[in-house]
Amino acid sequence: MNSDMARYPEYMITVGDLSRFTGQTEKHILNSFDKEALLRLPGGKRGIPPQHVKAYISERKLNYSFKIVAHINLKGGTGKTTTTITAAARAAQYGFKTCILDMDPQGNASLAFDRMPEEDDPVFCDIWQNPGEMVMGSLKLVEDYLYILPSSLENSLLDVDLMNPRSQKHAVSGVCQELRKNGFDLVMIDCPPSLGTAVISTICAADTVVIPVCSDLFSMKGMELTLSEISSISKAFHLEPPETGILYTKFDKRIKVSKNALERISSKYQDQLLPVPIRTSSEFSKMLEKKKTVFALKGKSSAKEDYDMYLTYLLKRNETRRRNGGK
Amino acid sequence: MNSDMARYPEYMITVGDLSRFTGQTEKHILNSFDKEALLRLPGGKRGIPPQHVKAYISERKLNYSFKIVAHINLKGGTGKTTTTITAAARAAQYGFKTCILDMDPQGNASLAFDRMPEEDDPVFCDIWQNPGEMVMGSLKLVEDYLYILPSSLENSLLDVDLMNPRSQKHAVSGVCQELRKNGFDLVMIDCPPSLGTAVISTICAADTVVIPVCSDLFSMKGMELTLSEISSISKAFHLEPPETGILYTKFDKRIKVSKNALERISSKYQDQLLPVPIRTSSEFSKMLEKKKTVFALKGKSSAKEDYDMYLTYLLKRNETRRRNGGK
Repeated sequence: MNSDMARYPEYMITVGDLSRFTGQTEKHILNSFDKEALLRLPGGKRGIPPQHVKAYISERKLNYSFKIVAHINLKGGTGKTTTTITAAARAAQYGFKTCILDMDPQGNASLAFDRMPEEDDPVFCDIWQNPGEMVMGSLKLVEDYLYILPSSLENSLLDVDLMNPRSQKHAVSGVCQELRKNGFDLVMIDCPPSLGTAVISTICAADTVVIPVCSDLFSMKGMELTLSEISSISKAFHLEPPETGILYTKFDKRIKVSKNALERISSKYQDQLLPVPIRTSSEFSKMLEKKKTVFALKGKSSAKEDYDMYLTYLLKRNETRRRNGGK
Repeated sequence: MNSDMARYPEYMITVGDLSRFTGQTEKHILNSFDKEALLRLPGGKRGIPPQHVKAYISERKLNYSFKIVAHINLKGGTGKTTTTITAAARAAQYGFKTCILDMDPQGNASLAFDRMPEEDDPVFCDIWQNPGEMVMGSLKLVEDYLYILPSSLENSLLDVDLMNPRSQKHAVSGVCQELRKNGFDLVMIDCPPSLGTAVISTICAADTVVIPVCSDLFSMKGMELTLSEISSISKAFHLEPPETGILYTKFDKRIKVSKNALERISSKYQDQLLPVPIRTSSEFSKMLEKKKTVFALKGKSSAKEDYDMYLTYLLKRNETRRRNGGK
């Protein structure tokens, strides 16, 4: 039993996970690691700490480069926060140094990890003007490789503070570039269900915007409005629009309205719909109560499978253009 | 049995209600009406249709003048929508021609009355530039004397449309003044939990801002931020600040944290705290499912009592200054 075990109790991928991710056999993976690098998990599985996963992936040139992914839908309750925290926790398991930017003043992502800012802790509205000095000291550690810049109601003031369009263009982008300088690989942004300045600034910064959508008609309207605003905001700020993806959530194949909605979106937005609907699962709310994501669970579950596929797809996606890569 | 009965099935006050509201005896009230004006309700009570209530109140010079009341708290889930719809439904029973302005793009107030806008129905972002021609045709009737301008996700676009501070200052105010011209007595505004332009414009228009707050610490922080923003927004726009009131919601005297929070607010904000905490009650969610407010219930309930007192207090409050009265 490795003594590091206690340090990685919750978020770690297994040899089987990495096999699926890379397409290599489990045997090949087992042979690629020093025995000491692997941890024996309950159930006889072998866990691989994030830094070793990352080294393995990097050596195989998966060409991963720094990326900013935002989850946006003007309709509330479509799965933005669940998607952000679950995918971010999984990315950290793969060894990607990941930061969640909680941009929602209601702070649901921060609450989900029990990382609400204390009275004097800086939040986004305190740091965006001075990222070089402020960003790194404002992050909270969730797990190895996983950090969060938590949000609180003070971030409501951004709607007033970011009045100036120049500020809107650079606020989120500036914070993300500081994270990049400090060795982060991935920033995942959770947005409020609004079109306030925080969301506009996020659209200006993101490489990829993923729109979670479910069978609820309003969530689809929210998606359409979000898509058209992404396009007009990018135009207004003279920016290449970010890549956009649609992530179907709360899918239940036994429910007709859920199947029909997926088919409708699939035919209308075939280029954008990600090929991984997230199935409904009571595990999301169970784990939320424990202030964990589903990746802290042992064993298989549809929730883990679906978000694993989502993240794999997101990370492997071929990036044809980079908006912030050159800075 | 009066044939009008079928027309007033749900929202009507009784002789007893009016007695409490005016301080007159039930006998005096009974004698003041033609027998035909009163409706026999189930349970032997006498109901008074809104127009007769209003005439009675007006004759007794309760000095009621047009009023714009907004419910704001930057924290979600504090009772803004429940307070708006419940108090508005009660005001209509008292004969005040009342309009709910749903300013929240998530449209909870509209949903609560089953009055979501159809695809082509105009919402606030379609009408604010042209209130004279657009406002009256955009209202939906809920009950006699009770109307709503419903909201939909399209109103998210206000954050972009109302960029110009002049627009922010006048958008909500202009719509309200059009309602006033058309004989409305009361506008009740439900706001999103944000500080976007819709809320800023609402703060510029309101005579009274009521901040619903509960024992949740974040709701109190939301209240403090809301109070300070009301003051700085009023200053920035060279407006007298609106009257502000704090409405304690979800009160449960059996729960210590609930009592303590009420005491804390009471000592710190004694001038602003309204003397009517709203008690928790399962009736709110039960009636919400039926797309009604608690005032559609027959019989006594703490929910009805509390909101009756809230509204009475609000309507009788002495107004020392009027911001929009002169226009």
